[in-house]
Amino acid sequence: MTDSDRTPVTVLGLGAMGTALAEALLAAGHPTTVWNRTRHKAEPLVARGARPATDVADAIAASRLVIVCLLDHASVHATLDGHAERVRGRALVNLTSGTPAQAEELAAWAAAHGADHLDGGIMAVPTMIGSREAFVLYSGSRHAFQDHRAVLEVLAETHYLGEEPGRAAVHDVALLSGMYGMFMGVLQSFAVIRTEGVPATTFAPLLGRWLSAMAGFVDGAARQIDEGDYTLDVSSSLAMQAGAFAELLHATEERGISTRLLAPLGRLLDRRVADGHGDEDITGVLELLTLDHRKDPS
Amino acid sequence: MTDSDRTPVTVLGLGAMGTALAEALLAAGHPTTVWNRTRHKAEPLVARGARPATDVADAIAASRLVIVCLLDHASVHATLDGHAERVRGRALVNLTSGTPAQAEELAAWAAAHGADHLDGGIMAVPTMIGSREAFVLYSGSRHAFQDHRAVLEVLAETHYLGEEPGRAAVHDVALLSGMYGMFMGVLQSFAVIRTEGVPATTFAPLLGRWLSAMAGFVDGAARQIDEGDYTLDVSSSLAMQAGAFAELLHATEERGISTRLLAPLGRLLDRRVADGHGDEDITGVLELLTLDHRKDPS
Ligand SMILES: NC(=O)c1ccc[n+]([C@@H]2O[C@H](COP(=O)([O-])OP(=O)(O)OC[C@H]3O[C@@H](n4cnc5c(N)ncnc54)[C@H](OP(=O)(O)O)[C@@H]3O)[C@@H](O)[C@H]2O)c1
Ligand SMILES: NC(=O)c1ccc[n+]([C@@H]2O[C@H](COP(=O)([O-])OP(=O)(O)OC[C@H]3O[C@@H](n4cnc5c(N)ncnc54)[C@H](OP(=O)(O)O)[C@@H]3O)[C@@H](O)[C@H]2O)c1
Repeated sequence: MTDSDRTPVTVLGLGAMGTALAEALLAAGHPTTVWNRTRHKAEPLVARGARPATDVADAIAASRLVIVCLLDHASVHATLDGHAERVRGRALVNLTSGTPAQAEELAAWAAAHGADHLDGGIMAVPTMIGSREAFVLYSGSRHAFQDHRAVLEVLAETHYLGEEPGRAAVHDVALLSGMYGMFMGVLQSFAVIRTEGVPATTFAPLLGRWLSAMAGFVDGAARQIDEGDYTLDVSSSLAMQAGAFAELLHATEERGISTRLLAPLGRLLDRRVADGHGDEDITGVLELLTLDHRKDPS
Repeated sequence: MTDSDRTPVTVLGLGAMGTALAEALLAAGHPTTVWNRTRHKAEPLVARGARPATDVADAIAASRLVIVCLLDHASVHATLDGHAERVRGRALVNLTSGTPAQAEELAAWAAAHGADHLDGGIMAVPTMIGSREAFVLYSGSRHAFQDHRAVLEVLAETHYLGEEPGRAAVHDVALLSGMYGMFMGVLQSFAVIRTEGVPATTFAPLLGRWLSAMAGFVDGAARQIDEGDYTLDVSSSLAMQAGAFAELLHATEERGISTRLLAPLGRLLDRRVADGHGDEDITGVLELLTLDHRKDPS
C-alpha cells in the first residue's frame, strides 16, 4: 500500500449513500472519520474501524479531504455554515445531489473561506459503490481532483468535466432525467401487464431485453441532433408513430390504466406532425422541449 | 433446404416494416408474393425475386400463409374486407400494431370466414428483422403458430403467448410503453445537455452507460410488485427521490427546458409521499396508475 492509499478522509452524512461511501473507504484501508446528525447511524461503521467524530468541527479537522453526502443543498449549509473558518486549506467534495446553481453557490462559499471545492454527481445506487458499474462526474477545482483522484477512484470510476462548478450537476440533471423517463416507462409497462394477470417477474426478462434492444436510440438520436437532421436513418416515421401512440394510449385506458405519464409525449408527437415533420424521426420532439433555443439559436 | 423452408408466403403491405419482412423471407428462399396499395413500392422486392400480386385477391390466393403488415387496424380492414370469401383455409398472421380489442375483432372476423388467425407484435425496428435481436410476440391459433413457426423464425425469434387473440397486443402495449418512457427520458436528457453546449455524440456514451447501469430497476421492481412489498431492497427512498426530483425539475426550468414530460411523475412521487409511503421504493407509484385495481383488487 502506498502513502496515497492511506489518505485520511472524512465523510459527513451517513444516509444510505454516505454509509456506502464510508464502507468503500474503510475497505480500501483509509483512516475514515465519520459524522452524522443522528449519531447512532455511525455505529456499524465504527464497528468496521471508522472513527466517530464528536461533532462537525472535529470531523472537518480530522482530514484534508472532506466528502459531503447529505440530503440536499439546505442540509449541506445547515451542516457547514457554523464552521466556515475551519474549512481553509481543505478539499470539500460535495456528493450531495443538487442543481448547477447550488454547485456554483457552494463553490463561491468554499472559495470565500479558503477551501477547494469539487462537486460530484454520483451515478450509482449505494449497492454499486466500489463496483465497476459506478461512476461519479466531477467538476470544480482541477487541483483538488488531481490531488485526491486516487482516493475518489475507490468509490467509483471518476469523470472530470472541467473547472466550471455547475458542469457535473448539469450532467447529473441530464442523466437523471434519462433514468426517470426509463422508470416512468417501466412502471407504465408493469401497470399494463398486471391487468393481464402476468406476474411482473415473468414479464421482466422480456421488458429488460426490449429496453436493451431499443437502447440504440441513444446513439442514433445523438447523431441526428449533432447533424441537425432528424431525417437521418429514420426507421419509424413520426407520422406512423404518432398514430400508433394514440392507439397505445387508447388501449392503455381500455385496460383501466392511467395515461397521465405518457400523454404529454402524445401531444408533442401530434404537434410535430402538425408542424410538417411527419416523415422525420421522433428525435425532433426535442425541439419542442428547448423553447429558449428555438427563440435564440445561439 | 427442407420442404418447410420453401413454404410460399404472401406479404400484404410494403411500408418500412413489410419490406423488411419480405426481404428476410426472400433471403431465406421462400417463394414470396407481395402486394402494396401503392404498387411501385414492390419494385425493389421484385428485383430480388418477389412475385408482384396483381391485386389483393391474387395475393391471398398465392399462399396459405398470409402476413399482413399495414399501417393500422383500419387499413387492415380496408385491404381485407372485400376478400372475406378468399381467406378460408389460410393462416392470417397480422403483424400490424394494434390494441387487444382490435386483435380480438380480427380473430372473430377470420373465424367467421374460416381462416386461422395469429396476431403478432413485432419487437424490432425494420433494420433488426432477420437478426438475433428481433423478437415477435404471437397469440391466437396455436395450430397456425405450430404449422408456420419455422417460417416465422426467419423474421425474428418467436414467443407464443397463448390462444387469447389479444394477449400479444397487451404485451406489445406494455413493452412499447416502456420504450416510449425511455425515449422521453433520452430526449429530455439531450435537451438539458444541449444547454451546456455539450455535443450529443460526446454525451451519448455516458447516457447509454447510465441507462444500462440502471436497467436493473426492471428486475428489482418486478420482485417488489410480485411480493406486493415496496419496502423490499430499497436503495433510494421515495422521500429522498421526491425531494431530488423537485430540484431536478427546478434545475431543468432554470436551463430553459420544458418539464412537461417529467412533471407528471413528480406529482405522483409527491402524492405517494403524502400518502405515507416515503420510506418505500419508487415502484409503489404503480399503485397510482392502476386506478381500477385499487378500487377492485381482485
Ligand atoms: N441513494 C441513492 O441511490 C443516491 C444515488 C445518487 C445520489 N444520491 C444522493 O446522495 C445524497 C444522500 O442520499 P441518501 O440516499 O444517503 O439519503 P438518505 O438515506 O435519506 O440520507 C440523508 C442524509 O442527510 C442527512 N440530513 C438530512 N437533513 C439534514 C440536516 N438538515 N442536517 C444534517 N444532516 C441532514 C441525514 O441525517 P439523519 O440521519 O440525521 O437524518 C442523512 O445522513 C442525496 O443528495 C442523494 O440525492 C443518492
Ligand atoms: N417501423 C417500425 O419500426 C415498426 C416496428 C414495430 C411494428 N411496426 C408496425 O408495423 C406496421 C407497419 O409499419 P411501417 O413502419 O411499415 O409503416 P409505413 O412505412 O408507414 O407503411 C404503412 C403501410 O400501410 C399501408 N397502408 C396505409 N393505409 C392503407 C390503407 N388504407 N389501405 C391499404 N394500405 C394502407 C401503406 O401503403 P402505401 O404505401 O400505399 O401508403 C404502407 O404499405 C405498423 O402497424 C407499425 O406499427 C413498425
